[in-house]
Amino acid sequence: MRVPLPARLIAALLVLAAVLTGTLRLRAMQPAGAPSPAPLGASRPPNIILILADDLGYGDLGSYGSPVIRTPHLDALARDGFRATSAYAPSPSCSPTRASILTGRYAHRVGIRAPLSPRSPIGLRADAHVTLPQLLRGRGYRTMLVGKWHLGDQPGTRPTDHAFDRFVGMLYSHDYTDPWVATDERLALYDGTRRRIEQPDPSTLTQTYTAEARTFIRDSGAARQPFFLYLEHAMPHVPLAVASGDRRTTSASLYAAVVEALDDSVGEIRAELAATGQASNTIVIFTSDNGPWNAMPDRMFGRDLVKPWDHGSTGPFRGGKATTYEGGHRVPFIAAWPSRLAPRVSDVPISLVDLLPTLASVAGATASVPRDLDGIDIGPVLTGAAAPADRVLLYDHLGRAEAVRVGAWKLRLTYPVDGAAGVTELFHLLRDPGERHDVARAEPVIVATLRRHLPPAP
Amino acid sequence: MRVPLPARLIAALLVLAAVLTGTLRLRAMQPAGAPSPAPLGASRPPNIILILADDLGYGDLGSYGSPVIRTPHLDALARDGFRATSAYAPSPSCSPTRASILTGRYAHRVGIRAPLSPRSPIGLRADAHVTLPQLLRGRGYRTMLVGKWHLGDQPGTRPTDHAFDRFVGMLYSHDYTDPWVATDERLALYDGTRRRIEQPDPSTLTQTYTAEARTFIRDSGAARQPFFLYLEHAMPHVPLAVASGDRRTTSASLYAAVVEALDDSVGEIRAELAATGQASNTIVIFTSDNGPWNAMPDRMFGRDLVKPWDHGSTGPFRGGKATTYEGGHRVPFIAAWPSRLAPRVSDVPISLVDLLPTLASVAGATASVPRDLDGIDIGPVLTGAAAPADRVLLYDHLGRAEAVRVGAWKLRLTYPVDGAAGVTELFHLLRDPGERHDVARAEPVIVATLRRHLPPAP
Repeated sequence: MRVPLPARLIAALLVLAAVLTGTLRLRAMQPAGAPSPAPLGASRPPNIILILADDLGYGDLGSYGSPVIRTPHLDALARDGFRATSAYAPSPSCSPTRASILTGRYAHRVGIRAPLSPRSPIGLRADAHVTLPQLLRGRGYRTMLVGKWHLGDQPGTRPTDHAFDRFVGMLYSHDYTDPWVATDERLALYDGTRRRIEQPDPSTLTQTYTAEARTFIRDSGAARQPFFLYLEHAMPHVPLAVASGDRRTTSASLYAAVVEALDDSVGEIRAELAATGQASNTIVIFTSDNGPWNAMPDRMFGRDLVKPWDHGSTGPFRGGKATTYEGGHRVPFIAAWPSRLAPRVSDVPISLVDLLPTLASVAGATASVPRDLDGIDIGPVLTGAAAPADRVLLYDHLGRAEAVRVGAWKLRLTYPVDGAAGVTELFHLLRDPGERHDVARAEPVIVATLRRHLPPAP
Repeated sequence: MRVPLPARLIAALLVLAAVLTGTLRLRAMQPAGAPSPAPLGASRPPNIILILADDLGYGDLGSYGSPVIRTPHLDALARDGFRATSAYAPSPSCSPTRASILTGRYAHRVGIRAPLSPRSPIGLRADAHVTLPQLLRGRGYRTMLVGKWHLGDQPGTRPTDHAFDRFVGMLYSHDYTDPWVATDERLALYDGTRRRIEQPDPSTLTQTYTAEARTFIRDSGAARQPFFLYLEHAMPHVPLAVASGDRRTTSASLYAAVVEALDDSVGEIRAELAATGQASNTIVIFTSDNGPWNAMPDRMFGRDLVKPWDHGSTGPFRGGKATTYEGGHRVPFIAAWPSRLAPRVSDVPISLVDLLPTLASVAGATASVPRDLDGIDIGPVLTGAAAPADRVLLYDHLGRAEAVRVGAWKLRLTYPVDGAAGVTELFHLLRDPGERHDVARAEPVIVATLRRHLPPAP
């Protein structure tokens, strides 16, 4: 039987044109006549500060269009550096995204399906994965984790089992306690393996973490050794809290005050870098682990301590945390490195799975990077030298890829669960960033092409 | 019978505290220690350029958080001047908002309930209202209207009946033609009272209007006379179109290309001001008449010329054009006046009903301003000198006020129509800008207080 070649050819051309619609847009982003900078790898390895907010929405910074939250320090960081409008958390929830950041792989490949409960037998095993702190320590970096881990509390999976020289923080989110999460495990703030503070007051966390970060920056400067600081803030995850006496709580919403306190923290860290002469050779990255928790389950409202409106904004995007609509995955992403990155706003799609290969390249550790990563080195995107033309981005959720973006197109495919029907939705993210107009029925060829990147029905 | 005084006192205090929650936030916006500038009225009246986009959404400019549209000229205008995050169209549709801008009154007081059809007996009568061009011409200004009028096509209501020295534009939106709006009236581009072009091609409108604006700016500079230019763009109202050959249509969405062409227009106008030495003493204001038309009726899709996704974004806000949720009313608002306004971002609530009293004050025409306006002089907001503490803002729709904002609180009250139930909704716009959490039942005192500003049930 003859294959109807002309029809297939037309279909293939249609797909090509469709992908190019996205691709051309990506290429159009480079300023005309801009120089093609050298790769980002530096002869003198820079310090690396990676700051991760928790449940911060795409629309929660001034530079990302917030009408109610003031973030002058983060806006200045964005003005000085690279700001992405198409940066993705690889998963729409805590532990999976964190696993992807540390391994450069989608969480379903690491076996982290969902946020980890205390005493879970699952966790990020230090002996099973090459992780970012390992790569950097191998290049002579001092390494520190400050803040929330959430990748295991059993032996072999704790931060102190990984290649962090220092750890000050907590093993889960600060809502893993009565009345929000039923557990016999008592929350603690750890210093290494030592429980330093039992059941710490959430209102102290941002300041405590910032003080620890500053000390580490200062000490590393004195030691004249490059450092990797991974600062995983507890906020603005619920229960929200700011330092007692913060004057902003009288004039702004509590959520705004909490984010503005994070902004203060970034200002303090930059000031510490400047005071210790390390500003120009430090890359500072700020992002979030997923979108805002704007549809919290009922269990969160016990004893009226958390309010239904204690969450951020997705900006123009649909959905939120725990969904594979853009609001669950699209996050702010700012990267400033004064000596190497010119100011730039970019809509090239990037993902937090890209952090490991990119930062390994920055630190000159490329040779140690595993070959079968999902992430890619986005150094050329940060400098504006090039954009990956055929990038396939996955939206990992609950142990599988539920959606995929190629160029401007996004396919979202859910299966029937608990009697609810599955959906097949296709969106064009340039003309319809808010995912209001599903065109799956009108564009069967695009659906078929993108579907190949998603796993078959379970 | 005794009035239960303590209960009433407590209720009153609760309301006061609630309103102050908004008020304090407003006050906190002024930079600490900022100088208190003189009133905006100038001894030498400045030129005034008021640019109104049509159906442009809050989220459609880079400086307002758009992830897909590039607006470098408008972003520069915002960096150089005043940018509001709480600016309101007084109505969520075309003709009513335009009536409010020209009169300083809510449209229900002017008798303009909805967009005007061709040959409608209703219109803005020149003999019945004091209008902005009247006030400014009375102060020696040359006046010109470029673009879309939409306030009447019958004698006594046309632009040429009002105090515009010149008019080049159209009497309605460019969709008042087959297949979108059934009418026997043929669209034309007018030059004064003369029909210059029959059924003009939408793709020419942005450039034609910009060229007319530039000529008027140049001639006014040569005449050494202050001028008022009111530029009401046809775009980005559907049907969308850009100049044939615009390269952006290959790389961006059509909507983005259309808005980026408006941004080019702003760049050209600023360049013309600079080239004619008028930049420093010209106030340039850019805003939109209502939110994006993201829920178009079926009649718009005749012959597949308009696509369902041919609309902008509300950014973080709910609703859109023709609704009294924030997405219908919240609009970008940028005002730059290099010699008088310092750069500032402000969340003080302002409305386009404020333009008449404010611009009259700027031009030194305060004495001629009617006393019973709904708008107020927001000069002190533009300079950062003061914010009106007890401002009551109405959301006018279909001939009555359907919602009201006082401080951070917004009450929305609809009546049963066509079998659909009416709603009473209360939102706190600082902690919940997206209007996701109705707290009317939990806050009856606030509801009762705000309800007094709304008309009784019809």
